[in-house]
Amino acid sequence: MIQNLLDRALAQARPAVELGEPASYIPELGKVDKRQLGVCLYTLEGGRYSAGDTRVRFSIQSISKVISLAAALERRGFDTVFQQVGMEPSGDAFNSLVRLETSESHPSNPMINSGAIAVDSYLAPVISFEEMLAFTRALCLDREISLDERVYRSEMSNISRNRAIAYLLENKGVIQSDVEQTLDFYVKMCSLSVTAESLAGLGLVLASGGVDPNTGARLLKAETARVVKTIMLTCGMYNDSGQFAVRVGIPSKSGVGGGILSVVDRRMGIGIFGPALNQKGNSVAGEKLLEYLSAQLDLHIFAEQK
Amino acid sequence: MIQNLLDRALAQARPAVELGEPASYIPELGKVDKRQLGVCLYTLEGGRYSAGDTRVRFSIQSISKVISLAAALERRGFDTVFQQVGMEPSGDAFNSLVRLETSESHPSNPMINSGAIAVDSYLAPVISFEEMLAFTRALCLDREISLDERVYRSEMSNISRNRAIAYLLENKGVIQSDVEQTLDFYVKMCSLSVTAESLAGLGLVLASGGVDPNTGARLLKAETARVVKTIMLTCGMYNDSGQFAVRVGIPSKSGVGGGILSVVDRRMGIGIFGPALNQKGNSVAGEKLLEYLSAQLDLHIFAEQK
Amino acid sequence: MIQNLLDRALAQARPAVELGEPASYIPELGKVDKRQLGVCLYTLEGGRYSAGDTRVRFSIQSISKVISLAAALERRGFDTVFQQVGMEPSGDAFNSLVRLETSESHPSNPMINSGAIAVDSYLAPVISFEEMLAFTRALCLDREISLDERVYRSEMSNISRNRAIAYLLENKGVIQSDVEQTLDFYVKMCSLSVTAESLAGLGLVLASGGVDPNTGARLLKAETARVVKTIMLTCGMYNDSGQFAVRVGIPSKSGVGGGILSVVDRRMGIGIFGPALNQKGNSVAGEKLLEYLSAQLDLHIFAEQK
Amino acid sequence: MIQNLLDRALAQARPAVELGEPASYIPELGKVDKRQLGVCLYTLEGGRYSAGDTRVRFSIQSISKVISLAAALERRGFDTVFQQVGMEPSGDAFNSLVRLETSESHPSNPMINSGAIAVDSYLAPVISFEEMLAFTRALCLDREISLDERVYRSEMSNISRNRAIAYLLENKGVIQSDVEQTLDFYVKMCSLSVTAESLAGLGLVLASGGVDPNTGARLLKAETARVVKTIMLTCGMYNDSGQFAVRVGIPSKSGVGGGILSVVDRRMGIGIFGPALNQKGNSVAGEKLLEYLSAQLDLHIFAEQK
Repeated sequence: MIQNLLDRALAQARPAVELGEPASYIPELGKVDKRQLGVCLYTLEGGRYSAGDTRVRFSIQSISKVISLAAALERRGFDTVFQQVGMEPSGDAFNSLVRLETSESHPSNPMINSGAIAVDSYLAPVISFEEMLAFTRALCLDREISLDERVYRSEMSNISRNRAIAYLLENKGVIQSDVEQTLDFYVKMCSLSVTAESLAGLGLVLASGGVDPNTGARLLKAETARVVKTIMLTCGMYNDSGQFAVRVGIPSKSGVGGGILSVVDRRMGIGIFGPALNQKGNSVAGEKLLEYLSAQLDLHIFAEQK
Repeated sequence: MIQNLLDRALAQARPAVELGEPASYIPELGKVDKRQLGVCLYTLEGGRYSAGDTRVRFSIQSISKVISLAAALERRGFDTVFQQVGMEPSGDAFNSLVRLETSESHPSNPMINSGAIAVDSYLAPVISFEEMLAFTRALCLDREISLDERVYRSEMSNISRNRAIAYLLENKGVIQSDVEQTLDFYVKMCSLSVTAESLAGLGLVLASGGVDPNTGARLLKAETARVVKTIMLTCGMYNDSGQFAVRVGIPSKSGVGGGILSVVDRRMGIGIFGPALNQKGNSVAGEKLLEYLSAQLDLHIFAEQK
Repeated sequence: MIQNLLDRALAQARPAVELGEPASYIPELGKVDKRQLGVCLYTLEGGRYSAGDTRVRFSIQSISKVISLAAALERRGFDTVFQQVGMEPSGDAFNSLVRLETSESHPSNPMINSGAIAVDSYLAPVISFEEMLAFTRALCLDREISLDERVYRSEMSNISRNRAIAYLLENKGVIQSDVEQTLDFYVKMCSLSVTAESLAGLGLVLASGGVDPNTGARLLKAETARVVKTIMLTCGMYNDSGQFAVRVGIPSKSGVGGGILSVVDRRMGIGIFGPALNQKGNSVAGEKLLEYLSAQLDLHIFAEQK
Repeated sequence: MIQNLLDRALAQARPAVELGEPASYIPELGKVDKRQLGVCLYTLEGGRYSAGDTRVRFSIQSISKVISLAAALERRGFDTVFQQVGMEPSGDAFNSLVRLETSESHPSNPMINSGAIAVDSYLAPVISFEEMLAFTRALCLDREISLDERVYRSEMSNISRNRAIAYLLENKGVIQSDVEQTLDFYVKMCSLSVTAESLAGLGLVLASGGVDPNTGARLLKAETARVVKTIMLTCGMYNDSGQFAVRVGIPSKSGVGGGILSVVDRRMGIGIFGPALNQKGNSVAGEKLLEYLSAQLDLHIFAEQK
């Protein structure tokens, strides 16, 4: 029955791929076929459902911010992470640096670039990229995740805005470790190659409070999972997060590679790949898919019945 | 057992009243005794628990924004309400008008003054204040709610900033009905006198999806309740909403009169009165109370167990 | 020779009327024939030169800010005027209110709407509009100046943004007298009807340091004239003032009625009427005329030879 | 008589050194003795007057922006320089990058850091620092000017904010040459060591329209001198330029090293050294000196008599 629903959801959302375009600010991302679409849904009871392009590798991009935040909470602790990074949705574009200069002197939250770069500056001195890769593979239940060298190089060649953000953070005293090392770490994390399946795996682990439901192994502290899900809900869909929470009501994080990671708490993980983006940077068809699934399966955090 | 917990919560939070001050920008609000503190908790199963000053009348202030939003959704519909009012947390102060001038030309959400004034401009032409008062009494399960004339007059004498906001909204085409009538409506709604019990009642109705659990009467559509709860979660605690969602995780709305309305979905409504405010405009001791209750009773939307 | 030059300047600038449009935000201003163009030049030695539509009455609009500033300096003194109004060019649009909310809590300068409304709030309690009208006629050497009732009414019907600015100023404590009286005063001053000749007259009085060169009568203190000319130079052409100072170098003030008042210190007054405006709100052909005259007659404040 | 006046001016301004502090954001600048004060005045007729510490070497800092602008106008031309750099005073702090992100996508003017870095990016590929040093020595009539290695190194160690600005400019397409080379060029220019005499020399050359009055050699085109003087007048004293123009009325450029370069057009050049700065970054006692001299010698651009 869930499989039928996924198939219908895919069919209903597919036309929306025409309404968006792949990210263009990094040349390598612009080469992807925007008509691809896939959704993968894993339940805590062990159900595995897929429809469409769920095994195509694509660039994780901003969804890596969730993994970095989780790692930083585990390795550095809540108080260190949030000493100079806020938890407030900003209403600003993901790559904005205006607010750093005006009302506040620290990044609004860890889901925008400035906040994620700050978080990575706490990680880079204490964990190698290789360890982060292993951590990512474990969390996503996917041993095939690897660095996409072409995306990495393409992104390093178009880094001026993030470099500006990073040096402004250094100027504000938010970053105290090496800026260039932090940027390299940040870009590498953004350049990981995942599938819709990887994201469903990550969603499942978060839905179960940090435990791999297949093995029972605890991968994250319960508190880490709780913090990450809350911040995904309030800040995960760029400056469309509020509207998405009202309409869909599922903690999610999108990336400009076309992915969406979604967590239906204590029920399921959902992974989506749909590289046609709307103007906010979210997968157009992906959002449609999730709105449909939320309505059909009562997945909204405040759904009447579940 | 819940009663004991409430008593302990009150004792543990009471010292925090010394850390805040009552709102001072409206003279009448500044006269309140800041040491007052009370919490009231109603469960869907019919439990009624109170501790402290739960029957003291105080000014509802911004919590009325929840009621206006609910009324507007019922009377004008979702699409009309959100045509020119957003659903995004703004990260700005509640009375800011900067964003109206810069990135956006409409209010960010209905929980900040500009958004609430816009919402009231949709209501004022179709519903009288007397009807709104009756609607409020019904939702709060409290027939004693009335207009505090002194607060109303005090606020009308200090209305310049809200008047500036309202005329800017008229200039932007967001308000199309009479500005002065809208402001009068807005200020009257802010000047209603409630108790912690009234807020627990309102919370209970929202927790049960819009139904009065005592009578079974449906007071709000399920969709209205869902939208309101989501916006409370993302935008309800001023520009501290994100942090509050992480730490406490209960959809809430605060007012500078010292009240907090909280909704534990499908479980309980909580009302708090504690007029000592922190710098964001939220009840200092009220936040402490809720953080304690959330931890002890697993009330966080993403709590491990419930 | 000057007459020939004026004729050539007019011919050379006339095609530019096609590049602009009359102000449209006030309906009454939009009705004007945008092809009109006239320039009038009065020298301290008594020369009177005109070309084009120099006797057509048009709305003075923002040029009245110069007269209000002069009156306020005379009646209230430098220190009172500049206690809560700055002297800094803002780089913002004339009707912006963002900066009032952010870095500063007072208007940047008296040539933008917020600053002029503040200045008028110092005048309105101490001088009647009839006295201001007499003062204006004297300064402009034009006894025919009068209030255009249709423009006044049209503008009062489209006052929301200025009303928002005025109430925000009241909220900031910048305006302490009656807001509606101040707005009425402000709009009446903007609705005066002048000609290019009136502006040349006003320019001549400023060029001679506040003295009517025909009669020798002192109309303004020397200090008032000096302050006014400096602020015209740095702030008079909206957020194009810096560029205009570089290219033309003549203290000037434009209005969206199409007028430009220019002062060549100790040499001449120039008045222009050309209602086709560029995007900054300045007369397109008027700017061309002045650039031509400045180059031909070495009128730039830092011209090589004079 | 001028010598007596300079002596009196110095005596009258000296107490003001107690009201300010040396720049502290670059450690090396903070080491200077803030009680130093000197003024040097050169007239076109050949007069040379000095009072106080006029031969002490200090860091030119932002005054180098005038020299870079002049060089860029000479080497690259007006149109190239101002294609992506504005001429508008911004009202913002000298090191702000907010406006780059909001209303405009280019630096407001060449006197703030972002604009100067852009200008230097046009220069760095076509002229070596050694040539710039020779050009500076010529313009300042001072062959002793050299790079202060300690200031240069201190500044390179505290470059994060300017680096952020530079990479943001690269992101906006304003800088197209090498960013690090541009920054190095910019910092070297800021680290030149000058005296009050050097600045009086530079002022004299600008006052004479670009000619060395001693030798008659033309060092700058007349247009270059005119553009530079106008921009100094509207933008030269940071976000206090408007007020300074009203009160003093002399085109000037200040630096956080404590220097002020002033140009009384066609009459004199003035150089000042006074490292105690006010909150805007201008020499406190230096401003007092200039206000006194302007009043006593009728140096205001719109002075009644000269």
